[in-house]
Amino acid sequence: MPLQTFSGVFPYLVSPIDDQGRVMETVLGSLVEHLINCGVHGLTPLGSTGEFAYLNDQQRERVIAVTVEACRGRVPVVAGVAATTTVAAREQVRRYEQLGVDGILAILEAYFPLPDDAIVRYFKTIADSTSLPVVLYTNPNFQRCDLTPPLIEQLAVVDNILYLKDASSNTGRLLSIMNRVGDRLKIFSASAHIPLCVMLLGGVGWMAGPACIIPRQSVRLYELSQQQRWQEALELQKPLWRINQLFARYNLAACIKGALEIQGFPVGAPLPPQPALTDEQRHEVALVLDEMEQLMKD
Amino acid sequence: MPLQTFSGVFPYLVSPIDDQGRVMETVLGSLVEHLINCGVHGLTPLGSTGEFAYLNDQQRERVIAVTVEACRGRVPVVAGVAATTTVAAREQVRRYEQLGVDGILAILEAYFPLPDDAIVRYFKTIADSTSLPVVLYTNPNFQRCDLTPPLIEQLAVVDNILYLKDASSNTGRLLSIMNRVGDRLKIFSASAHIPLCVMLLGGVGWMAGPACIIPRQSVRLYELSQQQRWQEALELQKPLWRINQLFARYNLAACIKGALEIQGFPVGAPLPPQPALTDEQRHEVALVLDEMEQLMKD
Amino acid sequence: MPLQTFSGVFPYLVSPIDDQGRVMETVLGSLVEHLINCGVHGLTPLGSTGEFAYLNDQQRERVIAVTVEACRGRVPVVAGVAATTTVAAREQVRRYEQLGVDGILAILEAYFPLPDDAIVRYFKTIADSTSLPVVLYTNPNFQRCDLTPPLIEQLAVVDNILYLKDASSNTGRLLSIMNRVGDRLKIFSASAHIPLCVMLLGGVGWMAGPACIIPRQSVRLYELSQQQRWQEALELQKPLWRINQLFARYNLAACIKGALEIQGFPVGAPLPPQPALTDEQRHEVALVLDEMEQLMKD
Amino acid sequence: MPLQTFSGVFPYLVSPIDDQGRVMETVLGSLVEHLINCGVHGLTPLGSTGEFAYLNDQQRERVIAVTVEACRGRVPVVAGVAATTTVAAREQVRRYEQLGVDGILAILEAYFPLPDDAIVRYFKTIADSTSLPVVLYTNPNFQRCDLTPPLIEQLAVVDNILYLKDASSNTGRLLSIMNRVGDRLKIFSASAHIPLCVMLLGGVGWMAGPACIIPRQSVRLYELSQQQRWQEALELQKPLWRINQLFARYNLAACIKGALEIQGFPVGAPLPPQPALTDEQRHEVALVLDEMEQLMKD
Repeated sequence: MPLQTFSGVFPYLVSPIDDQGRVMETVLGSLVEHLINCGVHGLTPLGSTGEFAYLNDQQRERVIAVTVEACRGRVPVVAGVAATTTVAAREQVRRYEQLGVDGILAILEAYFPLPDDAIVRYFKTIADSTSLPVVLYTNPNFQRCDLTPPLIEQLAVVDNILYLKDASSNTGRLLSIMNRVGDRLKIFSASAHIPLCVMLLGGVGWMAGPACIIPRQSVRLYELSQQQRWQEALELQKPLWRINQLFARYNLAACIKGALEIQGFPVGAPLPPQPALTDEQRHEVALVLDEMEQLMKD
Repeated sequence: MPLQTFSGVFPYLVSPIDDQGRVMETVLGSLVEHLINCGVHGLTPLGSTGEFAYLNDQQRERVIAVTVEACRGRVPVVAGVAATTTVAAREQVRRYEQLGVDGILAILEAYFPLPDDAIVRYFKTIADSTSLPVVLYTNPNFQRCDLTPPLIEQLAVVDNILYLKDASSNTGRLLSIMNRVGDRLKIFSASAHIPLCVMLLGGVGWMAGPACIIPRQSVRLYELSQQQRWQEALELQKPLWRINQLFARYNLAACIKGALEIQGFPVGAPLPPQPALTDEQRHEVALVLDEMEQLMKD
Repeated sequence: MPLQTFSGVFPYLVSPIDDQGRVMETVLGSLVEHLINCGVHGLTPLGSTGEFAYLNDQQRERVIAVTVEACRGRVPVVAGVAATTTVAAREQVRRYEQLGVDGILAILEAYFPLPDDAIVRYFKTIADSTSLPVVLYTNPNFQRCDLTPPLIEQLAVVDNILYLKDASSNTGRLLSIMNRVGDRLKIFSASAHIPLCVMLLGGVGWMAGPACIIPRQSVRLYELSQQQRWQEALELQKPLWRINQLFARYNLAACIKGALEIQGFPVGAPLPPQPALTDEQRHEVALVLDEMEQLMKD
Repeated sequence: MPLQTFSGVFPYLVSPIDDQGRVMETVLGSLVEHLINCGVHGLTPLGSTGEFAYLNDQQRERVIAVTVEACRGRVPVVAGVAATTTVAAREQVRRYEQLGVDGILAILEAYFPLPDDAIVRYFKTIADSTSLPVVLYTNPNFQRCDLTPPLIEQLAVVDNILYLKDASSNTGRLLSIMNRVGDRLKIFSASAHIPLCVMLLGGVGWMAGPACIIPRQSVRLYELSQQQRWQEALELQKPLWRINQLFARYNLAACIKGALEIQGFPVGAPLPPQPALTDEQRHEVALVLDEMEQLMKD
């Protein structure tokens, strides 16, 4: 059976957690429903925006279970797996696969620096422990171990490592990787990149937190790119980028959660000690959201 | 009742974990016994060397429990508490206090950057949730959020925040902090600093991984410093520093664990994907350990 | 009189210097002639590739004089001006303007960090001291003082500051700047960016070292972008990027000079202690140059 | 003839330049006279504090000439030589030697990164072109090419490379270097280090900007260290460190020049665009200078 193919807009879901540490299942379900209705092509729980680094194992599992259930197979669910040890990563993969996810977004957390072969071993072990497609995640800004282009090339030969989600902000790096791995790995943009540029270069979509709050606009941008209507796409991309400009200045989870609250999804605040948006920041976010709404009316 | 006072050599204990993920209690107990017999003044489980970032909650708790039990109150046990969320940190503090530790080494893990007031809030919450003395841990090399001198000054007014363990490698920073906080915070050196220099400046001891494998030499260096026999101390410090020079080149946990294996404590390898020492590295470590032995014979 | 408009491919010229420290005028003249014949739209002496940081005042002046003379007004010459002091920068502007250049590429060298208003003052002084159009140059990789987007916005109101050459490698930063300054500043790509992406976003061309050795391919890429033939442009951009991939691994001046030697322009080696290409590196460069030649034959 | 030996307090001289770009010879001469009267053991023109990176060749030469003349051989003058090219460095060495300096402080400026053997070649060429003793200068904060311990070890075998001035702020690095090179290189502290610690480790003195404004206190600290009166030295070191704490927050040249103005040496402001001290900063500096005065009265 061929592996499932991923492409298009995959919002990073936030993880709504209440004061008692419980996953707020109703609002997470509503968000999933809303995003699918807006036309997104997949869902990615437990990415950076999903605060994977702030959740315990039980919370993580619950987020996955609720997402899969609410999704009802309408779009693929690609679950973030993140750990410092190979054992913990493999355990997460096993549980999330049992819960019914369609793909794994593989993240390496590290405290001490790791030599290259240890990095490769970690990702290979993850891939070996599942039959699902694996997306490599690389984010030199927040992570201590970088997946360099030579390591990515090594991993691209693994049967079920099929995608790369790069969050480096260096678009040239993407093209260098593409030139190395050809069609063996397909590239998803992160919110650090301009989706339009990545699509022009041959990317297959984007996995990003902001897509949670501008799903219809994101889908529209994706479709224009697919149709190679680059000038129209640019006209949409330029104002959409204001979201990224704004969010780069504050805590990302706080921004996405705050924006969703404004949009009527009471997902709560990021886990403390991370701060919620201040009133002033919330006002700024509200103004940009209005601009984004306007874009779809024109 | 006045809070317990800490000073002297506090080795960072390794965390011996077997292939099944179980804490190897016998060897951990033997190591504790050995270190106390060598004269160390305290024990610090779950520091960086203790691979706190690689252990799950159950493993962490077991390491603390075994250490406290083996120690039998002969020296204080200062437990590392490390989390990305305030809730998880508070929970660790509560459990470790119940298990009988004598102090808390407070570590902030972070994924997204944090504003200053959130950093302060995290450490204050830890201190508020215990009656034990708290040691602030700052390590700009491995952690994303730095405790800057102004933040340290703010935290120094909290009743039970009494110590700072600084791992910055910048000795001038220590003196700047001392000039700011005076006697309100006492300073422990980390292995990134030269203990001799920190002692000369008025430090009260050091918390460091290498003290696990050179406990008698460390105690001797501490005593010479206490007696202000600075020249003799320097004669000892210079060759001892070779341990730090060597370990800076490899994974720290691998070095300490490898050295302990050579010394007859079968503590195993660091948790994968971290690599164990290669044969060649092990040989290098063995040679330096011989030199260290020689120092105590002269 | 309206200021001259710049757009298209502006190769960074190398600075050929012989063993006695003299500018090798003949080969520099031939290179200028060759590039103009290949259709480039302008020339930029004394950029990073031109080793401005390695030349003394006399050498810099001579490079400008020879370039202007060989160019004979066929395309605009935009001269790099780089200094740590305002006085030295102003002096360079004055001399180069007397020598007949058409624009100034303004670079700030710094040893100590500078506050924002000092950075702004430096660039304003340069602009005030000339009637020529000024291109701001920002390169966070090699320079200590970054022109942040807010500073760029402040400088964009100066009458003759009309362009920005950004070498940050962060393409999203370009779009953020464009969203801030609108049409007041036009953007040139650097070799750290993918020209195709910058053109799609609304850039007006690129100033880059590699254009010295692939001038016809660069002009072709520019024309395809201008005609919005994005897919064809991508087919050309992908293999052209191999040049950047290769050069990122070695000293840039050594690569460009080595490649020009292979192409029949004896421009010599970079100034010592910078190393020339080794035989092996030269062989690698020769292979890539062959690929580049092939692109224009297809 | 054996090479001259350097040890003790070597203030980095500021470079007083007037609005016309001329070296203000009278005040520079007075400063030299004052420092020698205060007991300093040597003088170092054209260090970082001397704004070498902001002066042209003529200004640099004039600073050296005036210093040598005013010094009249009473203490050694060690001149900073800094360049991006080997040729320019050699030329500076030759001129400064003709002007009568007693030693060379060798600094490598770099724009592009350099491979290790090129770095070694640069410093060897400087040493080969003079019979004077050479001090290696390493400053990873402000310079792009670091002299790593292995490179320093290679250079330590050169006959007239006798000293290292390390400005890394990492005191452990100093001990690692000492353990590598033994007595072949003697170590001078920089203002990034705590002189007291470096002296305890076996350093022979310090080369630092702040010594310009606290020369008598510096000499006193040096003497206490020489006499191994470490506790008394510490009592002096602690308050002296406030100077470093203060200056770390502003432009170093502005601080030293501003402080000298307060002390009656009208040395002017740092070269623009570097800012002079604001009134408020000047007030802060004046307060600390008062404290420093007080230290010598007790």
